[in-house]
Amino acid sequence: MKKYLDENFLLTTETAKRLYFDFAEKMPVFDYHNHLSAKDIAEHRRFTNLTELWLETDHYKWRAMRAAGIDESLITGNAPAFEKFKAWAEVMPGLVGSPLHHWCHLELQRYFGIYEVLTPKTAENIWEQTCRILEGEGFDTVSLLEKMNVRVLCTTDDPADSLEWHRMIRQDKTIPFKVLPSFRPDKYCVKDADCSALCEKYGTDRVDEALIKALDFFCENGCICADFGAGEFSDNPLLRMLAAEYKRRSIVMQIHLGPMRNVNPKIMGSFGRDGGCDSIGPAIDPIEVAGFLSALQEQDALPKTVLYNLNPSDNRMLATLAGDFAPDVLFGAAWWFNDHIRGIKSQLLELMETGSLASTAGMLTDSRSFTSFVRHEYYRRILCALIGEQVEEGLYPDDMETLGILVKNICYENAEAFFSK
Amino acid sequence: MKKYLDENFLLTTETAKRLYFDFAEKMPVFDYHNHLSAKDIAEHRRFTNLTELWLETDHYKWRAMRAAGIDESLITGNAPAFEKFKAWAEVMPGLVGSPLHHWCHLELQRYFGIYEVLTPKTAENIWEQTCRILEGEGFDTVSLLEKMNVRVLCTTDDPADSLEWHRMIRQDKTIPFKVLPSFRPDKYCVKDADCSALCEKYGTDRVDEALIKALDFFCENGCICADFGAGEFSDNPLLRMLAAEYKRRSIVMQIHLGPMRNVNPKIMGSFGRDGGCDSIGPAIDPIEVAGFLSALQEQDALPKTVLYNLNPSDNRMLATLAGDFAPDVLFGAAWWFNDHIRGIKSQLLELMETGSLASTAGMLTDSRSFTSFVRHEYYRRILCALIGEQVEEGLYPDDMETLGILVKNICYENAEAFFSK
Amino acid sequence: MKKYLDENFLLTTETAKRLYFDFAEKMPVFDYHNHLSAKDIAEHRRFTNLTELWLETDHYKWRAMRAAGIDESLITGNAPAFEKFKAWAEVMPGLVGSPLHHWCHLELQRYFGIYEVLTPKTAENIWEQTCRILEGEGFDTVSLLEKMNVRVLCTTDDPADSLEWHRMIRQDKTIPFKVLPSFRPDKYCVKDADCSALCEKYGTDRVDEALIKALDFFCENGCICADFGAGEFSDNPLLRMLAAEYKRRSIVMQIHLGPMRNVNPKIMGSFGRDGGCDSIGPAIDPIEVAGFLSALQEQDALPKTVLYNLNPSDNRMLATLAGDFAPDVLFGAAWWFNDHIRGIKSQLLELMETGSLASTAGMLTDSRSFTSFVRHEYYRRILCALIGEQVEEGLYPDDMETLGILVKNICYENAEAFFSK
Repeated sequence: MKKYLDENFLLTTETAKRLYFDFAEKMPVFDYHNHLSAKDIAEHRRFTNLTELWLETDHYKWRAMRAAGIDESLITGNAPAFEKFKAWAEVMPGLVGSPLHHWCHLELQRYFGIYEVLTPKTAENIWEQTCRILEGEGFDTVSLLEKMNVRVLCTTDDPADSLEWHRMIRQDKTIPFKVLPSFRPDKYCVKDADCSALCEKYGTDRVDEALIKALDFFCENGCICADFGAGEFSDNPLLRMLAAEYKRRSIVMQIHLGPMRNVNPKIMGSFGRDGGCDSIGPAIDPIEVAGFLSALQEQDALPKTVLYNLNPSDNRMLATLAGDFAPDVLFGAAWWFNDHIRGIKSQLLELMETGSLASTAGMLTDSRSFTSFVRHEYYRRILCALIGEQVEEGLYPDDMETLGILVKNICYENAEAFFSK
Repeated sequence: MKKYLDENFLLTTETAKRLYFDFAEKMPVFDYHNHLSAKDIAEHRRFTNLTELWLETDHYKWRAMRAAGIDESLITGNAPAFEKFKAWAEVMPGLVGSPLHHWCHLELQRYFGIYEVLTPKTAENIWEQTCRILEGEGFDTVSLLEKMNVRVLCTTDDPADSLEWHRMIRQDKTIPFKVLPSFRPDKYCVKDADCSALCEKYGTDRVDEALIKALDFFCENGCICADFGAGEFSDNPLLRMLAAEYKRRSIVMQIHLGPMRNVNPKIMGSFGRDGGCDSIGPAIDPIEVAGFLSALQEQDALPKTVLYNLNPSDNRMLATLAGDFAPDVLFGAAWWFNDHIRGIKSQLLELMETGSLASTAGMLTDSRSFTSFVRHEYYRRILCALIGEQVEEGLYPDDMETLGILVKNICYENAEAFFSK
Repeated sequence: MKKYLDENFLLTTETAKRLYFDFAEKMPVFDYHNHLSAKDIAEHRRFTNLTELWLETDHYKWRAMRAAGIDESLITGNAPAFEKFKAWAEVMPGLVGSPLHHWCHLELQRYFGIYEVLTPKTAENIWEQTCRILEGEGFDTVSLLEKMNVRVLCTTDDPADSLEWHRMIRQDKTIPFKVLPSFRPDKYCVKDADCSALCEKYGTDRVDEALIKALDFFCENGCICADFGAGEFSDNPLLRMLAAEYKRRSIVMQIHLGPMRNVNPKIMGSFGRDGGCDSIGPAIDPIEVAGFLSALQEQDALPKTVLYNLNPSDNRMLATLAGDFAPDVLFGAAWWFNDHIRGIKSQLLELMETGSLASTAGMLTDSRSFTSFVRHEYYRRILCALIGEQVEEGLYPDDMETLGILVKNICYENAEAFFSK
């Protein structure tokens, strides 16, 4: 029996261990999509306890707590921080096979050096230890990211944003990594969007003009990619215009397809948006997405693109569609409800089976949490395990030199190359 | 090599064996959805042979026989019972990897104490043995259920039903378990439904009124849940009204989504409905289902609900949609074409990965067969195997106390809690 | 660690090895759907190098090369043959887990006796060896097929085809296998189809009449099956008419559902159709397909049918739909983007779980390549591995006699029986 979350966690073969420890572990992190707060980085924010760090914004954990029947006051309500943490600890033992169980313990180990399992019994002790540790050196946002060997971060920003925090970060010589804004225009691309602030900021009453000016401003501030989120994707002139502008500026377009938002009216009423009541929406229409990409390509206006999907039943469709436009379009990493062992394995296997593993740009956190960067470790262990299995089962030659380079590329180099202008 | 279907069947690790034998095996059965005949229970019906027990109503077996090219006269036709049994025995060896092979042999072992493999060569011997055994004590419907440690059964009933057999069962002191009616109104919810008998019974010409009166009558007779089956789900006022009535009476609403019925006109002509020619219909529309649940919740009219789907490609979507309404809405057990090792594993893994394994209400038979209760054993072994793998691969701590409680909850306690008013 | 692609490649258990070497390996090949050129067979065409054999028409390899960022001139362009081969060799090491890596090396081993791994370093040596070998005996098209124990081949042909090459093959006494034309009418079944050549050939201005005459001509020339390819299937009178004609002539109807064609306008412009820029289209509508099959069956006009799908998310739906019409309708083998280890396993498991493994008609190459017949070996090894696992894990009795027959049936006998008139 393997010990829970020991140093060989997920590394099922000797080949996997060598690939992970000799190559993957050492690579820096290029996190090209996340929802970190630039302000929190610029201000070197500190956290006083695990509730602040773990439970303030993490809708994954909220959902798990609701599934366990925890009262909402202990989830998004006004209960005291320690009570919320205890409620979370009560939920933990039931999370067999959940990535939340792994992430929490990876975070306890890597950031805090705590190897105890979080249960209702250990909750108080872990709370006290972590509170004490958080008071010490190395637990501000910048140090947390530095500890994870982060080299580049792309936050997700409103085109109307002033980017003042990003500028402040750039001027802060103590911050040893890049924090770049990403252009995320979806809220201006829906019917009846409120574009007044954006238009006012850029001195125009046309949203398209305002968006282009904002994009220029983002690019002046280091922007290397855009993002677009859509439940059901529909091709339209504004999107095509934006894509062409991305292409012109050599920035990467990311598209996240498939969620259905704010499904639970009670939580929407009490808490508002992003309350952890989003789920998987209708299937992606490949004709619509293909039509969009084709039309762009015909006008030489297709930027480098990464396509993400939420319903894994659409994986194979989207992976092959991306392949139609290789190497300009990539099939993105396992996202959100797919960000777990099987989900990551599936995304990698689907690339292997219908495309080329070597071309993937690897992992991103897509997270609001400053301790979520252990997910890169999680991904890398799964990647090495998968390749290790291929080798040890006689499905790929035992060629560590080649595989070492492949692993390093997937962990870092491919992202750097794809996102470079 | 493991022996076929020995006592450690499916239990791939030591942890799995301990979880199964120390916890799962001992739990009683709460079968909250099946199609057993209350009349057969009330009358303590006996069976004279395996054809009666196995082949009279089992469309799973009919499909397997048709796939093997067996003549319809030996399937749903008029051939003699032993000929039909022999035809079934001929099909068995080809059913590698089929749950039918496992179910049949689990039934032979658990009910009859027969450990031989059913093949054309052993058919006659097994036929004779089982005929003899069926003549003895302990082989009436009540004894068969008692042998499986059944505590509660929810049959599936027409709202126009008199429930006389359910009442007779309640009065029968020799029956040591509960047999409760479930309210299944779908046939009255379609366009041009024939509601005359129902309306007449309840002295009204309005179907909604008749249904409410019938529901009251069901509740007086112990009903704790309703069921609704739909190929393509469409939200409508009658359904919403019924859901609100369920909520008012604190009964659970089950919804079975996705089948396409009676596809083969030849079998429909010769045999009629439920001839084993149903398959998987169009994808579930998450917007439609979410809209229905949201609208109910907004009016504080959302009952506790279990959502089942037939196409496993919709699993992840439905699991996350249920999660939006946790803990009131559950993602139901692997149903029908998914009721096999991989299907059950998938349903459990999807819960683990995107929700919480601890919250599931476990297994149900959904069967017409009095010997189908070995499917609870099948499910429990798979559950324990899955948890065992997590532990032995270092993906969950080796904490048998916690896991023992979890297993007991999933096998019985969660269902009892969820279905209690 | 297993050696890469050794004699026990994919055979993970002793049972698998026995099933493969004692039964599967010895069976001849009945390849009932491929895109081989009858002309190349009739002319006993020879190849001068691996670029000709591997890269001239293989869109799988083109996609992998594009994913790796290889310049189009080295893919479908005018670069010299050896340069193209070197470009392919550069791509190979990145294809971890790809069937392309396995197919290439199976081909090097089985046809050329080369056991080296193809990498940029070995490329020149392998090029020279294979060029030399290709000059020798046994490397014309007929010999290549003979080496693989091919007994029947069904090519895919335009109804307007003269079938002269098929006739020439029949008259060639040195060709020891059958090469039969398949009737593939889809291009005449779309709106605004250009039917002039077909109509002229058959002296009519009605396309339906021309197709029937062409079908008769095909049947006179040995045709035993038809094929139909559709992105989105839509039931229509012309298709029903054709199906009825197939039924009347006792030939099998194959239907390939789900691709989206020629998605990349740049490649379409430079190369044209079939340039490797096809991907998975919208989900299959089960109501449409079921309606088509049902309507045919009602008129006693449903021929034996094989249904193939491109999106594996539709597997379960199509497998159960085929089951509604068993044994006349079969769920076809894993196709195109599914033709790899997991894809083949899935197709087999889905048959096992919802139908009967024993009834499948096994594998086909669907290929333009004369060395692609190693895919039958690939399939057979996977089949034996899967059955072997069932046996060794105690999920099926250790009955080698029964399983040996099953394997032989799936490898050859079932196809011969299903496609016989």
